[in-house]
Amino acid sequence: MQDRTYTADAEPGDDATVAGWVHEIRDLGGIAFLILRDATGKIQIKFEKDEMDDDLVETGLGVSRESVVSVSGAVEEEPRAPTGVEVVPESVDVISAADPELPLDPSGKVDADLSTRLDNRTLDLRKDEVQAVFEIRAEILRAARERFREFHCTEINTPKIVATGTEGGTELFPITYFGEEAFMNQSPQLFKQLIAGSNVERVFEIGPIFRAEEHNTPRHLNEATSIDFEGAFCDQNDAMDVAEGVVKAAYEAVAENCGDELEALGLAEDFSVPEGDFPRLSYEEAIERINATGELDEQLVWGDDLPTEGEKALGDDVGGHYFITDWPSEIKPFYIMDHGDEELSTGFDLMHPRMELVSGGQREHRHEHLIEGFEQQGLDPDQFEYYTKMFKYGMPPHAGFGLGGERLIMTILGLDNIREAVLFPRDRQRLSP
Amino acid sequence: MQDRTYTADAEPGDDATVAGWVHEIRDLGGIAFLILRDATGKIQIKFEKDEMDDDLVETGLGVSRESVVSVSGAVEEEPRAPTGVEVVPESVDVISAADPELPLDPSGKVDADLSTRLDNRTLDLRKDEVQAVFEIRAEILRAARERFREFHCTEINTPKIVATGTEGGTELFPITYFGEEAFMNQSPQLFKQLIAGSNVERVFEIGPIFRAEEHNTPRHLNEATSIDFEGAFCDQNDAMDVAEGVVKAAYEAVAENCGDELEALGLAEDFSVPEGDFPRLSYEEAIERINATGELDEQLVWGDDLPTEGEKALGDDVGGHYFITDWPSEIKPFYIMDHGDEELSTGFDLMHPRMELVSGGQREHRHEHLIEGFEQQGLDPDQFEYYTKMFKYGMPPHAGFGLGGERLIMTILGLDNIREAVLFPRDRQRLSP
Repeated sequence: MQDRTYTADAEPGDDATVAGWVHEIRDLGGIAFLILRDATGKIQIKFEKDEMDDDLVETGLGVSRESVVSVSGAVEEEPRAPTGVEVVPESVDVISAADPELPLDPSGKVDADLSTRLDNRTLDLRKDEVQAVFEIRAEILRAARERFREFHCTEINTPKIVATGTEGGTELFPITYFGEEAFMNQSPQLFKQLIAGSNVERVFEIGPIFRAEEHNTPRHLNEATSIDFEGAFCDQNDAMDVAEGVVKAAYEAVAENCGDELEALGLAEDFSVPEGDFPRLSYEEAIERINATGELDEQLVWGDDLPTEGEKALGDDVGGHYFITDWPSEIKPFYIMDHGDEELSTGFDLMHPRMELVSGGQREHRHEHLIEGFEQQGLDPDQFEYYTKMFKYGMPPHAGFGLGGERLIMTILGLDNIREAVLFPRDRQRLSP
Repeated sequence: MQDRTYTADAEPGDDATVAGWVHEIRDLGGIAFLILRDATGKIQIKFEKDEMDDDLVETGLGVSRESVVSVSGAVEEEPRAPTGVEVVPESVDVISAADPELPLDPSGKVDADLSTRLDNRTLDLRKDEVQAVFEIRAEILRAARERFREFHCTEINTPKIVATGTEGGTELFPITYFGEEAFMNQSPQLFKQLIAGSNVERVFEIGPIFRAEEHNTPRHLNEATSIDFEGAFCDQNDAMDVAEGVVKAAYEAVAENCGDELEALGLAEDFSVPEGDFPRLSYEEAIERINATGELDEQLVWGDDLPTEGEKALGDDVGGHYFITDWPSEIKPFYIMDHGDEELSTGFDLMHPRMELVSGGQREHRHEHLIEGFEQQGLDPDQFEYYTKMFKYGMPPHAGFGLGGERLIMTILGLDNIREAVLFPRDRQRLSP
């Protein structure tokens, strides 16, 4: 296959072999066109029936849509062709004939519901706008990693099979591990902290997390991609700087490197990179502003968690990304450090107007406070000794966050359902493909 | 923590705050040194007892090893100091005192066995040579991704929770998924093929795989990192080109960007990047050459799988990386395509003299042959319908491979045990940390 030319690289004057899928056949009588599609775009193949070998014409025009063909011939300039060039075929080879009955129409002319799309992801991904989502997804992950490295972070990989969950036994998928009970990890939290406590100091991980949540909503997944950071000698403000930097880097990379994909998604004109610093509101300010919007039936009081409609009201009010800081200690997990007075925590969330993206904070690094935290959460610290004992040997102050990868992609691209940001989503109803 | 200076950035003339771990205290009587260690290296803190405040001296020299301290003072040139500079402290703050009884000595003066090291990974990672392995690991993954992108590949993430394993029910960890039986995926094989069949065409994934293998050897893991490639319109030779390119890119990146880490590992002088093309031996040539070495008690005959000692003899004979191609069909999995005559497959392995790194080949893309393959393997094709049905709708010829991430790191660095290439390895005995 070494001599194949991508359609986007076919230049007038070349003799080229292009290969791809039959996107469409337009038969105008004496002349007909096969539109061939590959990873880089589409190209027109011209059949002049009277001037070409009958077998060639029959093969080229008789092939079913979505079949895979290889076409060799001269590339010629043709201003009326969609890409300005066309191929005059000398040979057409049908490599893989498609069943004429397709369960989904990759030309996009017939709409398909999400379930049909996911059942037939191979066909679904042949649509420009679906391919574009996943090209952009890859670019976002690339840009995030690059930005983390600029923040002096080392990439790590932590185990997905674990003996105990980060926050105890709830919402964990149990595994049978050589006859023992184990779990799929719901967060790299404890492991990334153990590495930040060494002189690797600053780490990031982009990897799968698994949550046995019962929620089956457009913004929950049972298997998701978590973008994690943890840094020694960092406080919550440093962690917010990193989170803000990574989110902005994702937007910038999409704006800079994904012009064609944004075009395919109809976003090219409206796409913009967030400007200025993300505002940092304290929890107290946040509930005041939510109450002032008058959108909630009942006023929020100190200590309430923010309801979804409250987040929405505040998001509309702020009009862009923002942080909520200084949460009441009691609504944040035990591993988040308190401010001096123990009423307030160093926990923060980074919000997109549509939803929460990031949760983070400075961590409790003092051994005795950590043990107390486990007990207050109703967890047995002995079960977590593999983790807590390292806090006796010089654990530095550290902070970090987890950023929902699919939520980031979903909000950047304005997708309606988080499943559109995953190739093969996993939810309560869906285990395959 | 924003005003902290990394030790490597402390320049004579600066007033700086450095923070890190107490690596060592050398008390010479009237003068004493605290060696402070952080992510970037070590720095000397000088205490002149008669000229400094007693409290300062007491705090600085009384602190236990591996405690976390922050030191502010003037950075001065000192040719006799290991890095040519030292800090004359104005204040020393003990941030996190370490228990004087350490379960492992990060200075490396006392050897620890691997099990103790893994139980105390935070302390273990404070050793230069251990930190170096994981800095290099991160660089290898970065370089691999970059090389894949040069090969026009898009990064993908495939699900780790699956309804059926790639090769059937053996060696799978079962999960309870909302009351249903599911498994942790042993390979992205089927999923990456489904994406290569769309016009994304060429994909790579670096992610965890899970194998319930009973083996407990220095080169097996139950949770490992797989570096996967799949490309539409690729044959086995294209896939070998990509595999060779990615492996070489990893060596090149280490040689270019990890000088300090190679130094820490004692490898700086001997490290070399493989030169020239990796030889491509057919299976038939391979068994002839193994037989010719006289290292095996019994001669190999056509159809035998290669025993470990045979691979070793051949590796010594070749003296570098090499491919074995044209394997007998019957010892390769059903999804590998045969050559025309059905005796020979397009399967290949990429070998390092010490062990197999890569397994790949051209895939069976013809629907009816694929169904036959499942049946011959004793698998029920109906269970894999989510996969096989896409082969009816224009599946292009495609090829790919899986490269063992930890085996790559292990062979590049000459590590004795594959567990040294993983932060928190999982094996039959080890589930935590």
